[in-house]
Amino acid sequence: MKFLIIGGDAAGMSAASKAKRLNPDIDVTVLEMTQDVSYSACGMPYHIADPQRDMDELIVRKAEVFREKNKINLLTGHMATKIDPGAKCVEGVRLPGKEPFSFEYDKLLIATGAEPSKPAVPGIDHPDVMVLKNLEQGKRIRHHLDTHPVKTAAIMGMGYIALEMSEAFVKRGIHTILVKPGDTFLPWMKKDLADVVLEEVTSHGIEVHAGCKVNEIRKEEDGFHLVCDDQTLCADLLLVATGVNPLSRMASDAGLETGPSGAISVDEYLMTSDEHIYAAGDCADAINIITGKKSWIPLALRANRAGWAVADHLCGEPVALPGICGTSVFKVLDLEVARTGLNEKEAQTANFSPVEVTVKTRSMAHGQPGSTPIYVSMVADKTSDRLLGVQMVGKKGVAHRINAAAVALSAKMTVAQFFQTDLAYAPPFGPVWDPLLTAANQLLKKL
Amino acid sequence: MKFLIIGGDAAGMSAASKAKRLNPDIDVTVLEMTQDVSYSACGMPYHIADPQRDMDELIVRKAEVFREKNKINLLTGHMATKIDPGAKCVEGVRLPGKEPFSFEYDKLLIATGAEPSKPAVPGIDHPDVMVLKNLEQGKRIRHHLDTHPVKTAAIMGMGYIALEMSEAFVKRGIHTILVKPGDTFLPWMKKDLADVVLEEVTSHGIEVHAGCKVNEIRKEEDGFHLVCDDQTLCADLLLVATGVNPLSRMASDAGLETGPSGAISVDEYLMTSDEHIYAAGDCADAINIITGKKSWIPLALRANRAGWAVADHLCGEPVALPGICGTSVFKVLDLEVARTGLNEKEAQTANFSPVEVTVKTRSMAHGQPGSTPIYVSMVADKTSDRLLGVQMVGKKGVAHRINAAAVALSAKMTVAQFFQTDLAYAPPFGPVWDPLLTAANQLLKKL
Repeated sequence: MKFLIIGGDAAGMSAASKAKRLNPDIDVTVLEMTQDVSYSACGMPYHIADPQRDMDELIVRKAEVFREKNKINLLTGHMATKIDPGAKCVEGVRLPGKEPFSFEYDKLLIATGAEPSKPAVPGIDHPDVMVLKNLEQGKRIRHHLDTHPVKTAAIMGMGYIALEMSEAFVKRGIHTILVKPGDTFLPWMKKDLADVVLEEVTSHGIEVHAGCKVNEIRKEEDGFHLVCDDQTLCADLLLVATGVNPLSRMASDAGLETGPSGAISVDEYLMTSDEHIYAAGDCADAINIITGKKSWIPLALRANRAGWAVADHLCGEPVALPGICGTSVFKVLDLEVARTGLNEKEAQTANFSPVEVTVKTRSMAHGQPGSTPIYVSMVADKTSDRLLGVQMVGKKGVAHRINAAAVALSAKMTVAQFFQTDLAYAPPFGPVWDPLLTAANQLLKKL
Repeated sequence: MKFLIIGGDAAGMSAASKAKRLNPDIDVTVLEMTQDVSYSACGMPYHIADPQRDMDELIVRKAEVFREKNKINLLTGHMATKIDPGAKCVEGVRLPGKEPFSFEYDKLLIATGAEPSKPAVPGIDHPDVMVLKNLEQGKRIRHHLDTHPVKTAAIMGMGYIALEMSEAFVKRGIHTILVKPGDTFLPWMKKDLADVVLEEVTSHGIEVHAGCKVNEIRKEEDGFHLVCDDQTLCADLLLVATGVNPLSRMASDAGLETGPSGAISVDEYLMTSDEHIYAAGDCADAINIITGKKSWIPLALRANRAGWAVADHLCGEPVALPGICGTSVFKVLDLEVARTGLNEKEAQTANFSPVEVTVKTRSMAHGQPGSTPIYVSMVADKTSDRLLGVQMVGKKGVAHRINAAAVALSAKMTVAQFFQTDLAYAPPFGPVWDPLLTAANQLLKKL
C-alpha cells in the first residue's frame, strides 16, 4: 500500500512512524517543504532567549534516522501544490529549483499544518519582518539577535506566542513592545486573571499597546516604524505573531469539506470527506468534547495523537478520538497561565447557561513561607450543573493542576462530582482544599 | 438542637463551623482534649526544620475566633472518656485537674482522629521518646532541637511522616537514622520507584536500616540505644513514626460498628450505626472508590470534607460523599512522591486482574535544559480495562500531575479513555505526551 503524507511535522511524522511500526510493508512517503522534520516548535522561544542554547537541540529525530531506521521515504524540500483525488495523485515542485514531481497514493494524509496569519497592513510583507512558525524562521530570529544589536523589539499580537517571545526578548535585555488593535488584553480570559498577566508583563518593562491599530509598517534606516493612529512605534526588530490559519487551501481546492476557521473537516478517525484522504494536525478540525461541535484549536498534543490515530485506522486497528477540550498552558516570565474548556462567552455561544466564579487562593498550605497566589476562574452550566471550563494563573502550581480539570471535562463531570474528587495534599504543594476544589465549592453555591 | 463534637481538629472544627454557618441556631459544643484547634498538622515537619519559623504560624484560626466569631462553644482541655448512646450523653474530665463533666446531645460527632501506633518494644514508653501527631508534640520536638545539641536523630518507621521528618532533621544538620523491621523500603510502592526515593534519601547521608528490628530501647546518659539483633544504633533523639491507629475505642465501647483497621464504620453521610451519631476524620472509615469497599486511609482532605458533610446532613442539606481514592503526595528532600488508587497487590486483593507498567519520562519537553526524570507506575484491570492506580516520583511535576489520575479514578475511566484526555502542554512544563499519557499508552499495549 502506498501511504503518502503531505507535511513532515508532528502529525505527519507521527503517522509515518506509527504506520511503519504497525505494518513495515506499507510504503510510506512524506513530502516536506522545508528541510526540517520532527522538532519541538513550541520550544523555539526558549532557545531564542538563550544565546548558549543551540537551536538544533530542538530536533527530536533527524531526517536520516527516519529514512534509515524507520524506512520512511522522507523527501524534504518537496512542496506539494495540488491534490487530484480522482487520479489519487499529488503534484508539486522540488525546492529550490522547482522541478515538478507527482506521487500516486492509495491513502493520503494531509498534514500541512498552519501558517502565520498576517493582517493586511501595508509594509507587513517586507522581507525583514519576522514570523515564528517553523524552525527556519526560529533560526532566523535567533541569528538576527546573535548578530545585530537589537535594542527594541516590537511584536504585533498578544497571544501566547507573542507573550512567550516577549519573555525571550526581555531575557536578552531587549526592550519589548506589544501592539494589537483589540483593546482587551487576553480577551478569552476572565478579566481578573488577564489583569494578573498584564501586570506581570508590564512589571517587566514590556510596553503593552492594546487598542492600537498599526496602519502602516515602514522599514527605515533606523529600523521599523509602526504607524498607528495616535503614535508611531519604533523598533529594531518586528515580529508578527497575530495567530495562525490552517493550511487547507490545497484540500479545499481538491473539493474536500472544510469547517470552522477553514480547517479540513475530519471525523473521529481523521477521515476527510474523501474516503482515501485523512487530515491531521493544525490543518484539521476536531470535535470539542464540551460542546460536541467541531472546533479548530491547533495544539501539539492533538497533532501527535491525530497522527497516531491515522496510522491506527490505516493499519486496521482504528481508535476513535473523542476530541479536544482546548487544554493549553503557557509560561510568561514568572507566571503559569492555563485553560481548559470554555470561557463564559464560548459557553453562551454554545447555548449553555454559564455561571462563573473567580477565586484567589494560594500555592501552599497555611503557614508555609513562599506561597504565592493562584487565581482560578471556573465556568459551569446552570441547567445541567456540568463543569464547562477552567482558567488558572499563578507563579506556581498551575501548569499541571489544569489537567485535573481537563480530565473532569473529558468525563463530563458536574461541578458537584468534581468537587468530590480526591486530590492530593501536602503543605509544600498546596492548601488542603486544592484551588480547583475551592473554586468548585464557590461555584456550587451559584448553581 | 444540641450538636456535640468530640475532637477539635480538621473534621470536628469543619463540622462545627459549617453547621453554624448553615444554621446559627444550632447549639454547637466541641470537646477538645488539647489546647490547640485548627492548625496545619501536616505542616509541622517544615516548621520543625526551620529555626526561623514560629510553630504558631501553623494555627489557621485561634480558639477565641471560633468562640467569639463563630459562636461555637469550644472547650479545650476537655477529654471525653465515655459515650452513652442510650442517654445521649458524653462523659469526660477536664484537664489537668480531671474534674468530671457530662454533656447531653441531640446529635453527636465523633472526630477523635488517630493516635501514633507504637510497636511493643521495651523502653518505647520512656518519656523522652518523641512522637508527632499534635501541635504540642510538634512544639516539643522543635523546642528540643532549639535547646539541645542534637547530633544524631533516630526515627523508627519509614512512612511519609518519618521521611518528612528525616528531611527536617537533615535540614538542621542532624545525622539521621531510619530503622524498621520490614526489609522493603516503601513496600506499597513499585520497587523501581521506591529505589529512586531510597537513593534520594541515602544520597543525603540518611542511614536506612530496613529489616532491622529494634528489640529494646535504652535511654542512657549519652542518649538512646536502639538494640537490634546485629547492632545497636545510638542517637540523641528518638522519634517513633510507625503509623497511626484510629481513636475509636470510645465508639466501640459504646457499641458502634467498626470496620477496617478498627476505624468507626460510617455511610456516605458519615452516619455511624447509631442514627444520632456521626463519625468523621481519621477515626472513621470511607468507601474506596476503586474497590467499592470500606477502607481506612486517614488523610486531611477527607477529614475536612467529611466534617462539612456532617454539617450538611445535620442541617438538612445532605451531600453523599462518593469516597476516596487514597490520593496522597509527600515531599522528601528534592523529590515529590505521589500516589492515587491501588497498587498491584491491593488490586489483586480486591479481586482485580492487575496489569502494571513502569515508565521513565521527563519533566520537560525535548531539548529543554533542566529537565529531570519522572517515573510513573500505572496499574489497570485486565478484565475491565479500568485504570486502578498510579504512582509517581520525580524532582518536579509530580505533586499536581497525580490529580489528573485521581480524577480519572473518580470517573472510573478505562486506560483507553484516560489516554485520550486532553492534557496541557508547554515545553517548560512537560513533554508533548504527558508522562501520565505515556504510561497509559504503554499500559494499553498490555491490556
